Amino acid sequence: MIEQIRGGVTAAAGFLCGSTSAGIKNPKAPREDLAVVYSELPAVAAGTFTTNLVKAAPVRVSMEHISSGEARAVVLNSGNANACTGPDGLKDARRMTVSAGLVLGVAGEEVLVCSTGRIGVRMPIDRIEEAIPRIKLSNTASLKCAKAIMTSDTFPKEIAVRVETPKGVFHVGGIAKGAGMIDPNMATMLSVITTDAKVSQADLKKVLGGAVEDSFNRITIDGDMSTNDTVIALANGASKVRPPLALLREAFDAVAQTLARMIVKDGEGVTKFVEIALTGAASKEDARKAAEAIANSTLVKCAWAGGDPNWGRIMDAMGYSGAKLVEEKVSIDYEDLPLVRGGLVTDTPWKKVQAVAARKEFRIGVDLGLGKFSHTVWTTDLTEEYVRLNLGE
Amino acid sequence: MIEQIRGGVTAAAGFLCGSTSAGIKNPKAPREDLAVVYSELPAVAAGTFTTNLVKAAPVRVSMEHISSGEARAVVLNSGNANACTGPDGLKDARRMTVSAGLVLGVAGEEVLVCSTGRIGVRMPIDRIEEAIPRIKLSNTASLKCAKAIMTSDTFPKEIAVRVETPKGVFHVGGIAKGAGMIDPNMATMLSVITTDAKVSQADLKKVLGGAVEDSFNRITIDGDMSTNDTVIALANGASKVRPPLALLREAFDAVAQTLARMIVKDGEGVTKFVEIALTGAASKEDARKAAEAIANSTLVKCAWAGGDPNWGRIMDAMGYSGAKLVEEKVSIDYEDLPLVRGGLVTDTPWKKVQAVAARKEFRIGVDLGLGKFSHTVWTTDLTEEYVRLNLGE
Repeated sequence: MIEQIRGGVTAAAGFLCGSTSAGIKNPKAPREDLAVVYSELPAVAAGTFTTNLVKAAPVRVSMEHISSGEARAVVLNSGNANACTGPDGLKDARRMTVSAGLVLGVAGEEVLVCSTGRIGVRMPIDRIEEAIPRIKLSNTASLKCAKAIMTSDTFPKEIAVRVETPKGVFHVGGIAKGAGMIDPNMATMLSVITTDAKVSQADLKKVLGGAVEDSFNRITIDGDMSTNDTVIALANGASKVRPPLALLREAFDAVAQTLARMIVKDGEGVTKFVEIALTGAASKEDARKAAEAIANSTLVKCAWAGGDPNWGRIMDAMGYSGAKLVEEKVSIDYEDLPLVRGGLVTDTPWKKVQAVAARKEFRIGVDLGLGKFSHTVWTTDLTEEYVRLNLGE
Repeated sequence: MIEQIRGGVTAAAGFLCGSTSAGIKNPKAPREDLAVVYSELPAVAAGTFTTNLVKAAPVRVSMEHISSGEARAVVLNSGNANACTGPDGLKDARRMTVSAGLVLGVAGEEVLVCSTGRIGVRMPIDRIEEAIPRIKLSNTASLKCAKAIMTSDTFPKEIAVRVETPKGVFHVGGIAKGAGMIDPNMATMLSVITTDAKVSQADLKKVLGGAVEDSFNRITIDGDMSTNDTVIALANGASKVRPPLALLREAFDAVAQTLARMIVKDGEGVTKFVEIALTGAASKEDARKAAEAIANSTLVKCAWAGGDPNWGRIMDAMGYSGAKLVEEKVSIDYEDLPLVRGGLVTDTPWKKVQAVAARKEFRIGVDLGLGKFSHTVWTTDLTEEYVRLNLGE
């Protein structure tokens, strides 16, 4: 049985966290911007990182450190992405891991690092090194840490679950920050997920990979993939429970999907949450292409912002998506209302479909009628407010 | 010598055109919405059509008719795209060619058809058939025709050139309508180019293909490719001049590039015209991918709208473009100002770069430092006004 509980990233036994203010973005107007998540026991670690070829320094350092398969802590900051910062940036990211390691009594190589915020600006590494020792760890600070890593997010994102098994209880929990993009540069999707389940590194990797595929990799707000996107999982075995992999995956899914939905709902200027369930594609890749083309179409998203169930723009987006498509076989539903059949608009009363598109949350089912492959994405509308927030300087 | 002249699509000898009002979108508020371009002599024909897999009926019919390599006329309408209209739509498109053919005294198969406007709505074919005979052809009606095919365009688009050669004079001219997308459905890029040069069908195809590649295929406003995009070229040889192909291509380039720039400048809600000249890519395909990723990035476009030369977002967009990229080798210039070298921001005064990004028109040079391939695109910013115009119903 999977039950939602409080505690976020410290819901699992043996995990502590804490945060403080390092004045990273602006030392004159300090806010909490530095956090540490720590496992009291050795933990196996897995991570998924941005596939953007422009990778921020913390991504490069974390990829290097995680290759051992183990980690004891993650140090995270907002206010500066440490991206496009060259060799100096790499040095700064390494210094962050070493400083956190010194305070925690572990090696720098056992610490991972995540940054989010401005691009192309040196980290104020002295202020960070000064601040790290001030962080007080506890098992009640998860929400505070979730707040410290916020950038344009309007609310902190955390979730945890308690799972009962015949062999005992284990926990999975996490924190995340949003994929919204902010003035003057880009932000990032970051998440740390912890569990006290016993699991091998290889299995943790498998479970995390699958869970990310069905959550964070399904969400798209503006189609722009950041240089810093990172999801890290730590498993310390403190529960002494080794759950069946399917159950562990279910718990990870619950945590990752909740965090991913929170990120979409907190996207910049977002007024609608839209699920696109694409089925009937000729291949898995086609299903993904068609669903993402709809989700990323500026025109489709603008239509939703206006409450317009514009099926023509949906057809058009799929047509240029690169996916195999036979116009005459396409079906489109808004919730349970058939809007397109055989590529042609049905006689479903337009007002009924409009009423669905006017909701704050709705589901669009698209069937290509060509095969058995499917893909689901979660996306949003595109509003004037989004443009306003991203005008830059 | 290539010289710009008046006359648009009728600047070339032997071409006539005319337009009328058929009340296609709204019979109660009629406007000119139907046009015919006609060659008094037999003409060879070439066309480039949308690669969207959802192709409107007029696109399918024109592709069929143009396969003969010859055509005498093009009938065009605004107000209805005749897309996603099934077998009925195909019938309507064919009826338009037959009706125009009857009036012009040519076979329906010698007539091409272009439509733009609402998607998924039956053509008011009776009103169109009634209106076609009312069209008066002349060699002074090009601008009137350019107006008749406008949808969300704010100005008609036409251009013509006169080319002197040692063997005599020939002309190339054209009309076009914009790629902006409009309420409640999508619009389209349409263009008809005429010439009185003597040229074989195979050569015309080559010349048009090259000219389209370097003009209409370079422009991107919102990354959405329409179901109806069509460029048609007719060459009737009336000048009796068979120019060298390079010269004909130069004349076609002048016409097509002028029309393409007009389309970008008239994009919905557009306040800036941006040329992205990408060089140093490892392959032609990589050059295109990287340039288009920048041009289509919602975040980059929003930054420009705010006059922000946001190089971080440009780096990010190239990073996920799929093009080969080595961060440390990237250079970015705003006009002649070096902004990024070796993947790092330079010390060029930020105010100077901002002053460039504040202009209504500017050029960004991006060099990947990996090879000898290049690609240039023309694009725009993304404004709140764009979103407002595309909110749909």
